[in-house]
Amino acid sequence: MIAEKMQGLVDNNSVIRQMFEEGLKMAEEFGKENVYDFSLGNPNVPAPEKVKETIKRLAEEEDPVALHGYMSNAGFPDVRKKVAQSLNKRFGTSFHENNIMMTVGAAGGLNCALKALIDPGDEILTFAPFFLEYKNYAANFDGKLIAVRPDTATFQPDFEDFEAKITKRTKAVIINNPNNPTGVIYSEETIKRIASILEKKQKEFGTVIFIISDEPYRELVYTGAQVPYITRYYRNTIVGYSFSKTLSLPGERIGYLVIPDEAEESERLFQAVTIANRVLGFVNAPSLMQKVVAECLEEKADTGYYAKNRDVLYDALQKYGFGCIKPEGAFYMFIKSPTEDEREFVTAAKKHHILLVPGSSFMCSGFVRLAYCVAYETCVNSLPGFEALAKEYSLI
Amino acid sequence: MIAEKMQGLVDNNSVIRQMFEEGLKMAEEFGKENVYDFSLGNPNVPAPEKVKETIKRLAEEEDPVALHGYMSNAGFPDVRKKVAQSLNKRFGTSFHENNIMMTVGAAGGLNCALKALIDPGDEILTFAPFFLEYKNYAANFDGKLIAVRPDTATFQPDFEDFEAKITKRTKAVIINNPNNPTGVIYSEETIKRIASILEKKQKEFGTVIFIISDEPYRELVYTGAQVPYITRYYRNTIVGYSFSKTLSLPGERIGYLVIPDEAEESERLFQAVTIANRVLGFVNAPSLMQKVVAECLEEKADTGYYAKNRDVLYDALQKYGFGCIKPEGAFYMFIKSPTEDEREFVTAAKKHHILLVPGSSFMCSGFVRLAYCVAYETCVNSLPGFEALAKEYSLI
Repeated sequence: MIAEKMQGLVDNNSVIRQMFEEGLKMAEEFGKENVYDFSLGNPNVPAPEKVKETIKRLAEEEDPVALHGYMSNAGFPDVRKKVAQSLNKRFGTSFHENNIMMTVGAAGGLNCALKALIDPGDEILTFAPFFLEYKNYAANFDGKLIAVRPDTATFQPDFEDFEAKITKRTKAVIINNPNNPTGVIYSEETIKRIASILEKKQKEFGTVIFIISDEPYRELVYTGAQVPYITRYYRNTIVGYSFSKTLSLPGERIGYLVIPDEAEESERLFQAVTIANRVLGFVNAPSLMQKVVAECLEEKADTGYYAKNRDVLYDALQKYGFGCIKPEGAFYMFIKSPTEDEREFVTAAKKHHILLVPGSSFMCSGFVRLAYCVAYETCVNSLPGFEALAKEYSLI
Repeated sequence: MIAEKMQGLVDNNSVIRQMFEEGLKMAEEFGKENVYDFSLGNPNVPAPEKVKETIKRLAEEEDPVALHGYMSNAGFPDVRKKVAQSLNKRFGTSFHENNIMMTVGAAGGLNCALKALIDPGDEILTFAPFFLEYKNYAANFDGKLIAVRPDTATFQPDFEDFEAKITKRTKAVIINNPNNPTGVIYSEETIKRIASILEKKQKEFGTVIFIISDEPYRELVYTGAQVPYITRYYRNTIVGYSFSKTLSLPGERIGYLVIPDEAEESERLFQAVTIANRVLGFVNAPSLMQKVVAECLEEKADTGYYAKNRDVLYDALQKYGFGCIKPEGAFYMFIKSPTEDEREFVTAAKKHHILLVPGSSFMCSGFVRLAYCVAYETCVNSLPGFEALAKEYSLI
């Protein structure tokens, strides 16, 4: 009775639910404080105080008909203008309000971008390991998601494989920078190389290939790391942003798309994503939250909190002999599994009440993802478990 | 470059934008108070005071990590429970939290329902005149939207045509009750008849046919009119609801789907719409607004305001000789055009600064839609224009 395309998703979902329920059961059995759940990418630092103050002030002062009302499907013009100005100030760009569409989170924005661009059978490249939901987003429009091999020494892309996988049907390349699940930032050199390969292939095939840059972690970077602003390196770029992580508002579903003037048929593309926002049923980004984020563009949830978690875990895992690149951004660590089948390692970790996600869930087996957006105590208290695992696998 | 499916939508959009810009230009030329814009279905009464108080209180008192955080894709369990209890109290149903999925407005909910049900080529019936966006929603999943003829004397469905149009491929029937654009409520008799035709056809074809009932106007009814609660008449029903109109929160994108236990494969269907919520990019309904509406389930924006508009316009239009059914719900009036081509009448009305929408935009030519969610003065001041139009067309 259910749509054929959904059958597999429903069947597979019970597996994820099983994992989730197992975690709950463990917490019940051993006490929540004795289970080290690193499986979920859910921010656990509060939104900045200014978010709260702004919500209260807007509710009190603004005309409710305007504050909670419809606006253009692209969002409130004044909000879009403020977002453009903030980007210009920070990245030396020259966006205006008609380059910015407010979206229902980054996920909503990505779907609008794909709806605007993808014909059935079009190919969308992305770099493994990647957030598996991209596959579902591509499938929404009958696009084919194709994964480019990672360089597992650096987790920068394998450029040779990238170039080889670009075809006439390649319509877009999704980049996630900083990266979930590796915590790696694609360097300026990487971005330039991706851009130059795409320029070459656009010419070779006479096609237009878009970079869709998914950047919910842009502001979660450590020790002064920089995330290059992609529109400065390649014309045909769509940036997808979300305030979920920067302002700790993941449940509010608020973000934006950037369609720069330089992009091919930019105006028509902006119309297309705006219409996609409407016909896909988003209609517009939540109105109160649009106004809230516009007042909080200079705010940031406490990333020092995540940095502290990263440091204590990374230093210990290094000491115990686990292979892992030091994350420069986001709140994930991608650890080399000491056994080939990383699902075996995930099971072994569970015995120490440590919950991790197998890399195969990100199309990169042999690794596991650890999400350190948890209490500092959870990180510290998990260390004896990791040490015991290191001994079991003879790493120390 | 843009996806083929989007090309037509983008081209067509410029027509709508033209209409909108024409309205703005008229307002500039003649003064806003001298233009009677009945073209948009945008609520113009403020949200109830309790909405404001609840937003402020939740922002002040709740843990921001929980208030703005992720939850199950179906929504906060406590919110879903409160919605179920409120429905049970009002309609004698027996829903529980796992019958309710919180959605990004009714549009988001409808798309989740269709994603869960529709295979490419499946047929979706709806009753003309109808909200044309249904066509785009069906097209998102390569479904074919098929319009059932109206009985233009009553604007209840033409049952003979309905029965004739049901085939083996019919997967769903979309009902909009109260109806946009007619303001008609499908009576209990109508609902029973639809249900019995579907029962018969399900048996005949050995198929499952869902009613998807789109009910954003459920609470906007006049003089004690009742909207039958559809799950009590037919098993295979999905109800889509939005708080946009009841609480005057259209920009906030908050609503819910009801999947009753009685529906075929109900549990699996609930899982499917929940996954659809995720993979379509909604992820979940905005979190703060979920909590807000849960506290405001007994609240209602001032429908007396709309009733007053309805009365002054309906009485005058009757007097001037225009044909029109007295609306029992929503805030629309569907007026018989005095000329066959209603677009000619729309143009004639513009000369009197009256903006209406042609019925062909709702797949029902020969009529025009008037949205009376405007200031009372706008209604009153438009009357001389209508009177003049009546004279031009020799109605009086």
